[in-house]
Amino acid sequence: MSEVYAARRTRLREYCNAGGSAAALVSRPANVRYLAGAAPRGAVLLLGRTEEHDLLVSAVTAADRPTQERPDEALRVQTLPAVGGGDPAVAAAGFAAGQGADSLAVEEHHLTVARHRALGSVAPRLRLADLGNAVEQLRVVKDEEEISCLRIGAEIADQALGELLESILVGRTERHLALELERRLVDHGADGPAFPTSVGTGPNAGRPGHRPTDRRVEEGDFLSVCLGATYRGYRCEIGRTFVIGTAPADWQIELYNLVFAAQRAGRESLVPGAACRDVDRAARQVLDSAGYTEGLTVLTGHGVGLEIDEDPQLSPAAMGKLDACVPVTVEPGVHLPGRGGVRIDDTLVVRPEADGGPELLTITTKELLAL
Amino acid sequence: MSEVYAARRTRLREYCNAGGSAAALVSRPANVRYLAGAAPRGAVLLLGRTEEHDLLVSAVTAADRPTQERPDEALRVQTLPAVGGGDPAVAAAGFAAGQGADSLAVEEHHLTVARHRALGSVAPRLRLADLGNAVEQLRVVKDEEEISCLRIGAEIADQALGELLESILVGRTERHLALELERRLVDHGADGPAFPTSVGTGPNAGRPGHRPTDRRVEEGDFLSVCLGATYRGYRCEIGRTFVIGTAPADWQIELYNLVFAAQRAGRESLVPGAACRDVDRAARQVLDSAGYTEGLTVLTGHGVGLEIDEDPQLSPAAMGKLDACVPVTVEPGVHLPGRGGVRIDDTLVVRPEADGGPELLTITTKELLAL
Repeated sequence: MSEVYAARRTRLREYCNAGGSAAALVSRPANVRYLAGAAPRGAVLLLGRTEEHDLLVSAVTAADRPTQERPDEALRVQTLPAVGGGDPAVAAAGFAAGQGADSLAVEEHHLTVARHRALGSVAPRLRLADLGNAVEQLRVVKDEEEISCLRIGAEIADQALGELLESILVGRTERHLALELERRLVDHGADGPAFPTSVGTGPNAGRPGHRPTDRRVEEGDFLSVCLGATYRGYRCEIGRTFVIGTAPADWQIELYNLVFAAQRAGRESLVPGAACRDVDRAARQVLDSAGYTEGLTVLTGHGVGLEIDEDPQLSPAAMGKLDACVPVTVEPGVHLPGRGGVRIDDTLVVRPEADGGPELLTITTKELLAL
Repeated sequence: MSEVYAARRTRLREYCNAGGSAAALVSRPANVRYLAGAAPRGAVLLLGRTEEHDLLVSAVTAADRPTQERPDEALRVQTLPAVGGGDPAVAAAGFAAGQGADSLAVEEHHLTVARHRALGSVAPRLRLADLGNAVEQLRVVKDEEEISCLRIGAEIADQALGELLESILVGRTERHLALELERRLVDHGADGPAFPTSVGTGPNAGRPGHRPTDRRVEEGDFLSVCLGATYRGYRCEIGRTFVIGTAPADWQIELYNLVFAAQRAGRESLVPGAACRDVDRAARQVLDSAGYTEGLTVLTGHGVGLEIDEDPQLSPAAMGKLDACVPVTVEPGVHLPGRGGVRIDDTLVVRPEADGGPELLTITTKELLAL
């Protein structure tokens, strides 16, 4: 794996050099992990003039690191003393100055004003530039190793969800179902949940980002579930909506079919080269044309990877196009206040037509199941 | 409760006025919650010239808010459109300029460089000052309502831990035990865990911040557990170490007694007016004098409240003194690489001698139990 991280750092180095910065300081944890193979708490990556100048600056000793996450062995690691060692970012700016760098590109969207000022104080001759979202942009297109982690995570989430559906649901609270799902994720080998598991019943069903309450599942409810597994740092997402009881009501079938049609339209428009906003529009216009214009979420999907919410965004205002090997969610939904709603959410990888089109990672059925 | 939040805002307003700022922008979520009663995701609090100018600026509609968390009803709320509404902090700076403020104190330790710049662009005539840790400092001393939330949280954590000790432990993995504890926290009424539950067995026992692995509990192991409940936003912490099997080994008893003595020394030095570093030293010197100078953690304790790690810090370099009604943890520990270790952690409230001295919130026994 070591060459992978070195290659990523080389790409970033080329980007920085083209922008006129000899060195870069990466502080956002997911970005550090992407480039260094691990992100001990508070660690930053100093990207120097050459590979030999790269340095992971950490305040956490090897003994404190979880065994699963080891930094790239080809990378030098500088561990600051736990007591009095200070901020690794500030130390890294000092090292950059010591290496003779005259400018340092930093992640202004991550560094706080106070830390940025401390950097300036420790190395007053260093010109601080903005690295912007350069690392986030490198992260958008995944390699097959990364996709394989996402695929395993999706399998785990499918298993956890499948087992829940086999158990008795009526009478159990949203909180309990969410905890049970999270336990099953870990049982099946996840590092942990990819985000707080959402379970909504009755009027709470289909509410985006709903936090589980003590409401119990009742006959006739919609039940919506959104969960994901983290596997080797990679996070996926699946969302499904079910009906509790023997037969769904007509309004439930109608709403479900509508959201299903919207979600399918979104999935089918995932082709390399498609504009992100067109994917959003494909899903959104199905809901729009049925009169559900209010209360729709900002996004109908988003990238996933080392974070659960990455670029690209699938939204009306999104810029840019999809590339092959970009994993995204497609997750339109409708929520009717007081009645509940439906949300259907898959993680897929954009693939060219010649490779069979979008690869569905979350394969739990999207039929309307009555449980 | 509304008067509580208004009184907190008044104190902050007085502080700002004394510092020459007519308005302040609070963006750190725990600080927003402290002053506004709730912190919808991404919301910021604009503190104006008078109470009537105060404004909670949110990008999340009421329907998206969990039912438990309602902002102070006396506070005006400005909800930005979900699509295209932009950053609430930037909008708030615009409102401050519109209210005629000429300077705005911001939380430079929380705002990123990029957001700070956006604030400056939207309101170029507004002088941006630094609010520093003003709100964090207001939060240090708790009122009895806050302490009551911590007390309930501690009871919940005690219950969850007590139930675990009655179950069979040998053969179960660290991950399972951690998940089981978190489920029990929620069963007993917690909003959720206060932080990721740590369970360490055998060589992992006593490692600070240890993340649970698939290692199974074995006869003769040390087992250390650290957990906490969040109750109405307030977070407490308890840590205990046990021995698995019928009789602890001599080295285990010796190490346990040592850490127990250190922890007791720390607890007993919790009096109003005590220097934070003296509390740290009281605990640390017990371990030091037994030869455990290496591998000790930076802190032997810290404040708790709306965040699990607040001021004050109990460390060798800490400044400041303890006040009455400040809840802190006392949590020394020793970890011997390859063998395991002991950590004992309580949450207590500093109280004057006349009120009976420090109030212990986490009451699970600290005898060395063999399970």
